[in-house]
Amino acid sequence: MISAKAASLIPYTAGEQPKDKKYIKLNTNENPYPPSPSVARAVRIFDFSRLKLYPDPDASALRKAVAEFENVGEENVFLGNGSDEVLSFAFYALFDGNVVFPDITYSFYPVYCDYYGITYSRLPLKADFTVNVSDYTDKPHGGIAIANPNAPTSVALKNADIERIVKESECNVIVDEAYIDFSVSAASCVPLVKNHGNLLVVKTFSKSYSLAGLRVGYAVGSRELISAMYAAKNSFNSYPLDALAQTAALAALRDREYFDECREKVISTRDSLAVRLRSRGFDVLPSDTNFLFAKPPDGLGGEELYKKLRENGILVRYWNAPRIENRLRITVGSDDETDRLIETLDKIIG
Amino acid sequence: MISAKAASLIPYTAGEQPKDKKYIKLNTNENPYPPSPSVARAVRIFDFSRLKLYPDPDASALRKAVAEFENVGEENVFLGNGSDEVLSFAFYALFDGNVVFPDITYSFYPVYCDYYGITYSRLPLKADFTVNVSDYTDKPHGGIAIANPNAPTSVALKNADIERIVKESECNVIVDEAYIDFSVSAASCVPLVKNHGNLLVVKTFSKSYSLAGLRVGYAVGSRELISAMYAAKNSFNSYPLDALAQTAALAALRDREYFDECREKVISTRDSLAVRLRSRGFDVLPSDTNFLFAKPPDGLGGEELYKKLRENGILVRYWNAPRIENRLRITVGSDDETDRLIETLDKIIG
Repeated sequence: MISAKAASLIPYTAGEQPKDKKYIKLNTNENPYPPSPSVARAVRIFDFSRLKLYPDPDASALRKAVAEFENVGEENVFLGNGSDEVLSFAFYALFDGNVVFPDITYSFYPVYCDYYGITYSRLPLKADFTVNVSDYTDKPHGGIAIANPNAPTSVALKNADIERIVKESECNVIVDEAYIDFSVSAASCVPLVKNHGNLLVVKTFSKSYSLAGLRVGYAVGSRELISAMYAAKNSFNSYPLDALAQTAALAALRDREYFDECREKVISTRDSLAVRLRSRGFDVLPSDTNFLFAKPPDGLGGEELYKKLRENGILVRYWNAPRIENRLRITVGSDDETDRLIETLDKIIG
Repeated sequence: MISAKAASLIPYTAGEQPKDKKYIKLNTNENPYPPSPSVARAVRIFDFSRLKLYPDPDASALRKAVAEFENVGEENVFLGNGSDEVLSFAFYALFDGNVVFPDITYSFYPVYCDYYGITYSRLPLKADFTVNVSDYTDKPHGGIAIANPNAPTSVALKNADIERIVKESECNVIVDEAYIDFSVSAASCVPLVKNHGNLLVVKTFSKSYSLAGLRVGYAVGSRELISAMYAAKNSFNSYPLDALAQTAALAALRDREYFDECREKVISTRDSLAVRLRSRGFDVLPSDTNFLFAKPPDGLGGEELYKKLRENGILVRYWNAPRIENRLRITVGSDDETDRLIETLDKIIG
């Protein structure tokens, strides 16, 4: 009764959004702080009679603001319904097959490939969970997808390495910068777009703007790549970004002061949480994100600790997958949430 | 630089959303009335701090309300980012190839097929623009997509004919009911879902709920078809429906009184507009939608009239396409807008 393609899908599994009881949610890399107060203000004064009309299909006002913010032309910006949708259109528009990405990375990449019938293979991260750059530059590939910083590892590639991959590879490169705003050791590679027509940089309002609930993401790339993405979008859904989301994202983008304040708080809490975990025997990878990828001290398995935290009302993310089956991905919460996490760990570890 | 698939796309072209000056917009079948006042109320009291969290991926509250409204189980309801997205997932999940639809119908259907590489062919409508039912029942097809009422023709199939197609065809049938709420001569075929596992009915909040700007649509079908659609969605974007859209659509769905009032006004204006156009020599097809498909009186071409109306600040939809190149699709506006249209036509016709 269903299509052969649909029958063979193995969908992406997002972190759980539990409804049974109240948890401290450190499992989906959400920002612990609410969005800018200007978001509520902008939506509350919205003229709701306008909802009878289709939204601006190009999200022009938001597109212009993003272009100015990123210091590129409007023709270099694509907007979509969250960076998950943006990535889906990017995989469709930029890749024919033989796509490569790390063995440990955002697990939606193989799902996009399967959805569209795009062939792919995984290139192993090094033992320290960093990307082996020469794997991407020394032989030709059909396409490259790199999350930078990577998830769930939290580790960032240096900009020079990204530039080397973009320069030396002869294929399109998607750099997924969902977490770049929390990075201290790396910077966005958007400035490389100007000289590299094969680079597409994807960003999101979900994490650093605290707008996961709103579903707005964007891509920056050459006019040619962006046009191809709009062709894909306009062959799927002409208006993925609703009028309220366009309004709210614009308000958030403009409040730079609030953005910086939240970002700095998250970075500060992250760094102190890493210290506290390490002092308790955890192996914590150096994080450039709003989460930590941590291996519990010897004698405590990743799955065991995940379950014990859950019993104690704290959700973190665990994958029973090769190389990472002893690690937990822990989102950086508020200071209070972090204190609760440490107290609970101390209780569990004893 | 771009994928072969993307290079060959011919995207759907939506009716224009002009920014140059103020028009009377009778070109995209939007509702002339604003959404229920309860939409603004629900959004204004929304707790905006919740936007930091991902939205409910299943839109559970809205799904439950739609299921109750449609008198089906929650497992029979799929929600998406406008019925365009819902249709896209439906084509992916239900069709392998050899899909058929009328030669004159929603022009997104062939675009979805091309996006996914699904083969299709067009079956000609009869000379009076009605569907030739036996074309769909007398030989096997890989899938069927029928808009009922059809667009841009405005003509509805009787429920018995829909039932015959669903019963006698041995394939999945998508019935796209974007305009069903404006129908007097036909009713929704959702009640058929119970006994026909091959039927998927697609509806939208864009037209009859005046929420085109919000992007919410849904499908009703068997548990098996709906599961396949969720597998497709979760392989594309886990959260296409943002938290504000879920809240607003729920508020609109609950205000039945306002819904009925707007619907009746649109139907009444439509019927009087049809009479006024016919008295001026237009050939107007019998409409079960919120638009009319009208052929101007002899001596006046469709394209010519489209251009003259545009010069006079009125937008309608025109296609330079076989069989319909002398017709205009005119959205039913408010009574004031309709009066302006008639005045302008009288000026043009002389």
